[in-house]
Amino acid sequence: MNIQLGRTKVVRRAYGIDETALVPGGRTVDPEITDTCWNLAGIEREIPIIASAMDSVVNVDMAVALSRLGALGVMNLEGVQTRYKDPNPVLDRISSIGNDAFVPLMQEIYSKPVQEALIYQRIKEIKNQGGIAAVSGTPVAAMRFSKTIAEAGADLFFVQATVVSTEHIGPEGQQTLDLEALCQGMGVPVVMGNCVTYEVALKLMRAGAAGVMVGIGPGAACTSRGVLGVGIPQATAVADCAAAREDYERESGRYVPIVADGGIITGGDVCKCIACGADAVMIGSPIARALEAPGRGFHWGMATPSPVLPRGTRIKVGSTGSLERILRGPALLDDGTHNLLGALKTSMGTLGARTIKEMQQVEVVIAPSLLTEGKVYQKAQQLGMGK
Amino acid sequence: MNIQLGRTKVVRRAYGIDETALVPGGRTVDPEITDTCWNLAGIEREIPIIASAMDSVVNVDMAVALSRLGALGVMNLEGVQTRYKDPNPVLDRISSIGNDAFVPLMQEIYSKPVQEALIYQRIKEIKNQGGIAAVSGTPVAAMRFSKTIAEAGADLFFVQATVVSTEHIGPEGQQTLDLEALCQGMGVPVVMGNCVTYEVALKLMRAGAAGVMVGIGPGAACTSRGVLGVGIPQATAVADCAAAREDYERESGRYVPIVADGGIITGGDVCKCIACGADAVMIGSPIARALEAPGRGFHWGMATPSPVLPRGTRIKVGSTGSLERILRGPALLDDGTHNLLGALKTSMGTLGARTIKEMQQVEVVIAPSLLTEGKVYQKAQQLGMGK
Amino acid sequence: MNIQLGRTKVVRRAYGIDETALVPGGRTVDPEITDTCWNLAGIEREIPIIASAMDSVVNVDMAVALSRLGALGVMNLEGVQTRYKDPNPVLDRISSIGNDAFVPLMQEIYSKPVQEALIYQRIKEIKNQGGIAAVSGTPVAAMRFSKTIAEAGADLFFVQATVVSTEHIGPEGQQTLDLEALCQGMGVPVVMGNCVTYEVALKLMRAGAAGVMVGIGPGAACTSRGVLGVGIPQATAVADCAAAREDYERESGRYVPIVADGGIITGGDVCKCIACGADAVMIGSPIARALEAPGRGFHWGMATPSPVLPRGTRIKVGSTGSLERILRGPALLDDGTHNLLGALKTSMGTLGARTIKEMQQVEVVIAPSLLTEGKVYQKAQQLGMGK
Amino acid sequence: MNIQLGRTKVVRRAYGIDETALVPGGRTVDPEITDTCWNLAGIEREIPIIASAMDSVVNVDMAVALSRLGALGVMNLEGVQTRYKDPNPVLDRISSIGNDAFVPLMQEIYSKPVQEALIYQRIKEIKNQGGIAAVSGTPVAAMRFSKTIAEAGADLFFVQATVVSTEHIGPEGQQTLDLEALCQGMGVPVVMGNCVTYEVALKLMRAGAAGVMVGIGPGAACTSRGVLGVGIPQATAVADCAAAREDYERESGRYVPIVADGGIITGGDVCKCIACGADAVMIGSPIARALEAPGRGFHWGMATPSPVLPRGTRIKVGSTGSLERILRGPALLDDGTHNLLGALKTSMGTLGARTIKEMQQVEVVIAPSLLTEGKVYQKAQQLGMGK
Repeated sequence: MNIQLGRTKVVRRAYGIDETALVPGGRTVDPEITDTCWNLAGIEREIPIIASAMDSVVNVDMAVALSRLGALGVMNLEGVQTRYKDPNPVLDRISSIGNDAFVPLMQEIYSKPVQEALIYQRIKEIKNQGGIAAVSGTPVAAMRFSKTIAEAGADLFFVQATVVSTEHIGPEGQQTLDLEALCQGMGVPVVMGNCVTYEVALKLMRAGAAGVMVGIGPGAACTSRGVLGVGIPQATAVADCAAAREDYERESGRYVPIVADGGIITGGDVCKCIACGADAVMIGSPIARALEAPGRGFHWGMATPSPVLPRGTRIKVGSTGSLERILRGPALLDDGTHNLLGALKTSMGTLGARTIKEMQQVEVVIAPSLLTEGKVYQKAQQLGMGK
Repeated sequence: MNIQLGRTKVVRRAYGIDETALVPGGRTVDPEITDTCWNLAGIEREIPIIASAMDSVVNVDMAVALSRLGALGVMNLEGVQTRYKDPNPVLDRISSIGNDAFVPLMQEIYSKPVQEALIYQRIKEIKNQGGIAAVSGTPVAAMRFSKTIAEAGADLFFVQATVVSTEHIGPEGQQTLDLEALCQGMGVPVVMGNCVTYEVALKLMRAGAAGVMVGIGPGAACTSRGVLGVGIPQATAVADCAAAREDYERESGRYVPIVADGGIITGGDVCKCIACGADAVMIGSPIARALEAPGRGFHWGMATPSPVLPRGTRIKVGSTGSLERILRGPALLDDGTHNLLGALKTSMGTLGARTIKEMQQVEVVIAPSLLTEGKVYQKAQQLGMGK
Repeated sequence: MNIQLGRTKVVRRAYGIDETALVPGGRTVDPEITDTCWNLAGIEREIPIIASAMDSVVNVDMAVALSRLGALGVMNLEGVQTRYKDPNPVLDRISSIGNDAFVPLMQEIYSKPVQEALIYQRIKEIKNQGGIAAVSGTPVAAMRFSKTIAEAGADLFFVQATVVSTEHIGPEGQQTLDLEALCQGMGVPVVMGNCVTYEVALKLMRAGAAGVMVGIGPGAACTSRGVLGVGIPQATAVADCAAAREDYERESGRYVPIVADGGIITGGDVCKCIACGADAVMIGSPIARALEAPGRGFHWGMATPSPVLPRGTRIKVGSTGSLERILRGPALLDDGTHNLLGALKTSMGTLGARTIKEMQQVEVVIAPSLLTEGKVYQKAQQLGMGK
Repeated sequence: MNIQLGRTKVVRRAYGIDETALVPGGRTVDPEITDTCWNLAGIEREIPIIASAMDSVVNVDMAVALSRLGALGVMNLEGVQTRYKDPNPVLDRISSIGNDAFVPLMQEIYSKPVQEALIYQRIKEIKNQGGIAAVSGTPVAAMRFSKTIAEAGADLFFVQATVVSTEHIGPEGQQTLDLEALCQGMGVPVVMGNCVTYEVALKLMRAGAAGVMVGIGPGAACTSRGVLGVGIPQATAVADCAAAREDYERESGRYVPIVADGGIITGGDVCKCIACGADAVMIGSPIARALEAPGRGFHWGMATPSPVLPRGTRIKVGSTGSLERILRGPALLDDGTHNLLGALKTSMGTLGARTIKEMQQVEVVIAPSLLTEGKVYQKAQQLGMGK
């Protein structure tokens, strides 16, 4: 599908999730007997949904609640939770400030340094309440705090840069990041991302990643494509990286799950990402709408506090129900943002997929782009035109 | 037309009705002499329009009126008409409640059980007034109430699941649905659906379907694509299933009409569905706008009352004229929602098609997507932004 | 460019004017020396623009003024001008009534019969003031009033049905329209339309058409696509019919100009239609915005008064300047709706085209669809959301 | 990628910047060590951004400030700066007048003649404050004022017509523009534009252009496509002209930078233009938003004052920060309009490009069109619907 962009520049068309739809075939399955389980580094979860490592989404209580409900939440080790002993007053300020003062406030709040003791404490708090302690940090933080993270008992570490590459060129004299060493040195299984291409996904798996995050620039609270021009439509990115997973399993015998991350708002988005090849999805704004979410009805991206180039917007997402209602229902809303597990099971049943592996094989078509209600609302809210 | 979604995932492009347009050729026909008749299981109708089996669209009186006007209406045997002896107070509540309380109210109303006696009574009421008694139910209801339905004198039964498959996997020990047995056991001709692919349409015909409903996820009051990711643009679905009809007629000598169901709002939509290969269309919201419609100016999908995963939205469609005006004119509105038969005859005349079979052969082109006034309004209403 | 709509249905993609753009090449021409003249049945005009035969656009005074300014206006012989001795009170009513009462009013007004004497009188009035008397009617009117039209001294007759076909099937016993006989029997040169395909355009030329109108369903005040599903994007229709013109000139030595009709709002639209192959354009709403236009700031389609299936909407287009300003400038507005001749000459200069024939050869590209300001306004006005 | 527009008309698809996205690969670079320098006629600049030669964007002070900050500003020698000794009262009037009176006011203001003495004076003023004196004019002005421009010490001259062609046909007797003679006769390096095709770009280079401006019709304050039908989507235009640059360097050994001009609003747009092949970009509205900009929060195109065919609209862009903040940050806004250099460096780092030449080689994909916040706002403002 090569396209002639100009006389000598040949490019390809990449497809977004909103441009796809799933096609029921000759078989249906009772939703009751569909099996949505997936496995990340030996940790089995019933719900293939991971809550994003964002300050508006996951704190200690949320990580515990997500674990209990069959999902997973990742706590950001470089956000407010580890910069402030009591992050609540800080979160109160973020949720009560006006739009104009938001970016400067974020820049101020995130100028306070991360405290190693709080990293240790937060992980312990999750473990003590019986939660799965999945935590995230930049590659630099990973190397700096690896010992503390492991000692505190973390179960999973997400090396989460906006973009993880397999070759990084730094200023002269600066040590290059060795992903393989990082994976082996953390003492806990390492999930790496985000990437969008077959080649990088394959290299991350070869470097020892326990999972690979896929998605750059498609998210609602992420303005990478506007600010940086960077981004790749998610359906194509997921399908490409899933191909790497298959090839890697063939060469190594090891199965490395692919997690689609970014731009996922409704149950339909979750289903379509899996149908494009994902094993699970990472979501931010749908979880930020939980009554228990630390964002208090707001959601913002982690690039927002950048002191020189803030990206990502604070969106008023509202609080629409309990975390349990959002994940497992019963739904009170009919817009696809409640009962995500129910939606997945119903969709799998409709499509005749008994397992996540079968769901990855259902027929996908390219369809006229769907502007869902939720996305129209969100866009309107971003533009300050919401109700 | 294969498209490389990702490295190893090849998909195809499916087209929606809004992306098509019809091309007049070298012949025109006087609309007066066009013949719009079609035949479903030996029942001939002048108007190839079926009113949807939805509580906002068809009750006993509507079924009778639709029959009298040359069309057909299907009454849902699992809606308010068979759960409540007097459904009027229930319909009054639905139409007077606020948006926020709508989903819980629906969940409450539909938790009341279906009464077999009312099934019998409603069918009798239609027959006693000289109407065609076309009724619908899920496969489970079909099997449970088949005797009552036949004894009451129903003329047609629509097995209408969101998705009908030719193989259903249920919980262990649960009996699998045998479509062939169902068709033969009902005692009345059975129309089956909905499906969207050539393969399933062919299997439904082979199982003995008297007609096949086509359409999953394209409808205005249907949010399947948002909630479940499921749906296939209607122009492609209809064209595919029409190909199955031709092949099946060739192999069996039996002609099984295809009914396009979902997303049809204007006369233009009706014409385009037939041009893509349908024999008739099933419509909900355009009929819900009749003064006589039970929805009292509102329209809602039948997946809405789901206790765990409500889908479909209540839309305020308004009451714009009598059922006769909507079906046979004269039109007072110029937006394509009045005088649907007149629109079809005028379109057929313009395109030189004397019969429905000729209309299925007119030239279709892919054209820039048309956002009709009616659809803009409806979308705005869904978003609570309507007048 | 065949597209698989469904398993056995192969269609093609047709392109609209809004999807095209014109590409400047290696040559420019001083706009002053561009030559925009064209010739219709021996009548040479400087401006390749014809005002539509619509009641909101052309009356006697407008026909005269358009002639004087170098353009052409066609008067509808079956509109208010020939039904009412003094059409002004009727036009006043149309422009002062509310939206809800508009369609019934139109149905009432147009139920009054056409008076042959008024046909004679209007043509005479145009001729007496030195105007070119171009008039239009349906095929039926053409045959009925041909003698009067010729005797009154009409210069051009436009047989203008929504769709003109080369074969018409009427009720049994009814005489079929013979286009060739019609052309020869009118006594004045006959322009025929509208058509959208190569085959029909060629047949109309062979039948003796002095010009061929191209365009079905693309117009702003035309809702054919919504109501009937009928319509073909204009860029493809014009290019196809222009190919017929070339082939016909090759076979006969006679050059029959192509007139693009429908959906043309701005100077850019005029330029693009010609670049796609048109010799001239027919426009309605841009001329209805003239202070002198009979529509008094409103515009409506001629299918609107249909007693059973009204199509086309009344749009408040406003009165933005004199006819001279709209056609020849100077412009006061910067949205492309003033000084259409100046826009054409500037565009031709920019593209290096000295004549209309050269303009038909400039490079066209398919570009992301352009939603011009004017079209957004018009759509908003149609929806009653305008200022 | 040939497309059949009609039976004999074959066209190609051209792509806009909004339809593209950039794909991170296997390498990242620390933004700190990215090198954004580029060179125009021996003048090296750190920031590959040129402020447009528009009255709302560049005056003497802005030219000096842009030079100091590492960028470049071009002053229009045929705008208010050289028609009025003190342009401030004129600019005050433009920014305070209502929308309806805007076009006539512009026509009046620009009817005053250009004063040669002011050309000399403005260039001197820039030089005296240590700025780079880049100035622009039409070809006619170039020939008329060349001596004054060179004597005043201008560093660069931009021959900037909407469209520059290599062959111009004027009225008989009028001397044709000889671009080669123009280049050699100016006494200062000449940048030429705008063009959009490989052939013209190549001819301009061969004529001696020091740089080539690319872009016709894609700009926000430019309504060429609506008024004239003229315009080519920028991604394809840039890629085509960049191919000419490569071929010309191969044949001549001289490297002529390509400057993308038009429709660039965000940092992402800047990055994508370079990735499509540009060496630098020219921007108007983003710079008009600087507190120091002469437009006082407004922006308008230079075709607006045309006495007969005004094009381009006045847009209220607002004043969002200092010029330094817009170019070099730190950003206070998160919409991609602050810290353009930071955005470019971050994007280059993300994409693994160390230099502009490497940035021209990163992977581009065609992606679903992105309607950025800024563009939605701007469109809304054009329509008078802004806040």
